[in-house]
Amino acid sequence: MRTVDLIHRKRDGEELSPEEITYLVESYTRGEIPDYQISAFLMAVYFAGMTDREVSALTDAMLNSGETVDLSSIPGVKVDKHSTGGVGDKTSLICAPLAAAAGVVVPMISGRALGHTGGTLDKLESIPGFRTDLSIDQFRAQLQELGLSFIGQTAQVAPADGKLYGLRDVTATIESIPLIASSIMSKKLAEGLDAIVLDVKVGSGAFMKKQIDARRLAQAMVGIGRRKDKRVQALITDMSQPLGFAVGNALEVMEVSQVLHNEGPDDLKRLSLELAARMIFLAKITPTLDDARELALNKLVDGSAYNKFRQVIEAQGGDPKALDKFELLPNATGVREIASPRAGYITAINAEDIGRASSMIGAGRDQKDDPIDPAVGVILEVKRGDRVDAGSVLCRVYYTKEDHVEEAAEMVEDAFRISGQRPDSPEVILEVV
Amino acid sequence: MRTVDLIHRKRDGEELSPEEITYLVESYTRGEIPDYQISAFLMAVYFAGMTDREVSALTDAMLNSGETVDLSSIPGVKVDKHSTGGVGDKTSLICAPLAAAAGVVVPMISGRALGHTGGTLDKLESIPGFRTDLSIDQFRAQLQELGLSFIGQTAQVAPADGKLYGLRDVTATIESIPLIASSIMSKKLAEGLDAIVLDVKVGSGAFMKKQIDARRLAQAMVGIGRRKDKRVQALITDMSQPLGFAVGNALEVMEVSQVLHNEGPDDLKRLSLELAARMIFLAKITPTLDDARELALNKLVDGSAYNKFRQVIEAQGGDPKALDKFELLPNATGVREIASPRAGYITAINAEDIGRASSMIGAGRDQKDDPIDPAVGVILEVKRGDRVDAGSVLCRVYYTKEDHVEEAAEMVEDAFRISGQRPDSPEVILEVV
Repeated sequence: MRTVDLIHRKRDGEELSPEEITYLVESYTRGEIPDYQISAFLMAVYFAGMTDREVSALTDAMLNSGETVDLSSIPGVKVDKHSTGGVGDKTSLICAPLAAAAGVVVPMISGRALGHTGGTLDKLESIPGFRTDLSIDQFRAQLQELGLSFIGQTAQVAPADGKLYGLRDVTATIESIPLIASSIMSKKLAEGLDAIVLDVKVGSGAFMKKQIDARRLAQAMVGIGRRKDKRVQALITDMSQPLGFAVGNALEVMEVSQVLHNEGPDDLKRLSLELAARMIFLAKITPTLDDARELALNKLVDGSAYNKFRQVIEAQGGDPKALDKFELLPNATGVREIASPRAGYITAINAEDIGRASSMIGAGRDQKDDPIDPAVGVILEVKRGDRVDAGSVLCRVYYTKEDHVEEAAEMVEDAFRISGQRPDSPEVILEVV
Repeated sequence: MRTVDLIHRKRDGEELSPEEITYLVESYTRGEIPDYQISAFLMAVYFAGMTDREVSALTDAMLNSGETVDLSSIPGVKVDKHSTGGVGDKTSLICAPLAAAAGVVVPMISGRALGHTGGTLDKLESIPGFRTDLSIDQFRAQLQELGLSFIGQTAQVAPADGKLYGLRDVTATIESIPLIASSIMSKKLAEGLDAIVLDVKVGSGAFMKKQIDARRLAQAMVGIGRRKDKRVQALITDMSQPLGFAVGNALEVMEVSQVLHNEGPDDLKRLSLELAARMIFLAKITPTLDDARELALNKLVDGSAYNKFRQVIEAQGGDPKALDKFELLPNATGVREIASPRAGYITAINAEDIGRASSMIGAGRDQKDDPIDPAVGVILEVKRGDRVDAGSVLCRVYYTKEDHVEEAAEMVEDAFRISGQRPDSPEVILEVV
């Protein structure tokens, strides 16, 4: 098998066999194919795409390059949720306790903030004492006991994906649907899951700016999972404005607490309940999706999801009292109000700008190992469709250091679009794949 | 300037500035940009193409990476001819003496056989004693004296092209019109020419299989040259069957001698005269192209082109008597006749197969430094449109070693298509660009 011939055929739009895809991934991971051939191959994939069979073969090859977590000893159906990343997206901290309270086993393996998007691990770690670096044995034990545990991905999962992603990052080949889909799914399939609910974000704050691209990505990921006999559903959800009101780690934990008390912003609550319902339904705990929705709502209203989250926090070394006494969470020392320059309707809140501004004052990071400031962020006072007066508060910027506050405040201010025309009322769930 | 951003923009179909293209080529040549980024860039160019301005910037950057030949001390207009490579294409050995006999200064810098295509240098070196490794000073002196000299390209010409070509070869990015056009033109423009006639081959024996691709390549090269204020014309010519009857180095020199005696195959003579006429016309030796055609024909008929070629052979150390006494040329020791399996018309002679078969028995090479056997090759007895009887000779395979003769003979036999239907009579010159 000559690598140049495989690149040639991919370039010409031909389908490679699973053996050929496996050869490329395995030989590359072992260092037997040079970077310059794989980067040409990746660019050819960017333009020529991949068939379902190729995407599955690529996913399998990356999955098989590393360790997989064996959860077969734990009774029950294992279901995770994965989001493609957004601003103010704290649904994992709500839907996971909801689903676990309903009897789903939720092995939640999450990521960290990068660029303008937040990360579940960073949000959890803003709770004093909370540890996400459990061993696989601790993870398994907690899943058995509580049905829910949160950890980060280990370096031993899908190392081929890590190596390929590093090359894609410097060769402008990140934005390829088959490459994104296989990258996500190779890591998710390593978790020992039976089912997964995917939340594919679309809009200004998401990686996918257009719904057609989000749909293609969702279809690709659902296809990969189903061909591995996993139950998979994907929601395409709105990220044209931040989800909920809070953006920033401890600020988002406070909002999670509100929702788990059946309060808090409507869009966040609605999406979290729907994600939990689909997790419950895929776990076959209820016969229909409507039954699952009812069960999820019950677990919210009766406080059992809230209690589940408290138990998980305690089990992972955190202080569950922080969920009710927000003074126990890291708190910002300064606040800046952003006022509306005129009266009108909010027609857009650029989520990427809000995310970037929050990251700039410390809520996120640009490089993988940068430290973050858990206290800071932005809390919106309005959402799209709301009516504002001139001078009324659009949002508040919470900070601990003066650096970049001016710049961040300007960016936040520019994120709002205000018009005399009332916009359509926004839908958070746009499509099911 | 971040290389990844330049790849990204090219991938998205944007135009890069001349400064950006120059940065990529210069930094890559200096080893400051890694292969894996340039290979991704090349694949992006393969798919997204290049604008005229980009192709010219790329050509200039490669041209400026090395030495250029200064011929300004030699009076007269300097005109070369370049072919994209074919089977049985020995026109350089005919049109160059024709043009030189008419007063054109012809600094002919040529290549070697590779794959199924022949090379001018190998053909010349089949003449006993002929040397193509002249120094630039010797080259210049001979041009001054005789108006014609044949040499090979030095490694100092366009080294950036050499490095890029090496990378393209292993990343399936050879077949890109802007990359081919800039590669050819960067080397030709380094020769100190005033004008160039391009012979772009199309058909089974050519690199370009389709006329539309040949036209695009021709247009790209003509555009590059004209933007450098060079007079450039391109002919698109037929390579769906070998040119002339002879394929193989010494065999082709014999055929050249026939044409220079105003004998030999019609297609070869016609194309060589037209190429010479365009060289004469671009050199402004005649006011019109028709005058140039008449002058070229005169120089053939009156023997002055033949005499010019003899002088050049002598000047470069070769034995000019070999042009008339073919026993002085390397001669094959074995011959195999290929007979027609049935009566009918020759509708096609796959030129690539004839070229490959000749190469297999030693007339060509697969790797740059393989030795060749100057004596061997194929001589066709028929061309497309000819009528044959069952058992009549289609061609003869000349060999010196038994290795691969069987295989080559089969390949040659398979190259002929014979049908009851008389085909259209073939045109050698298809189009002028």
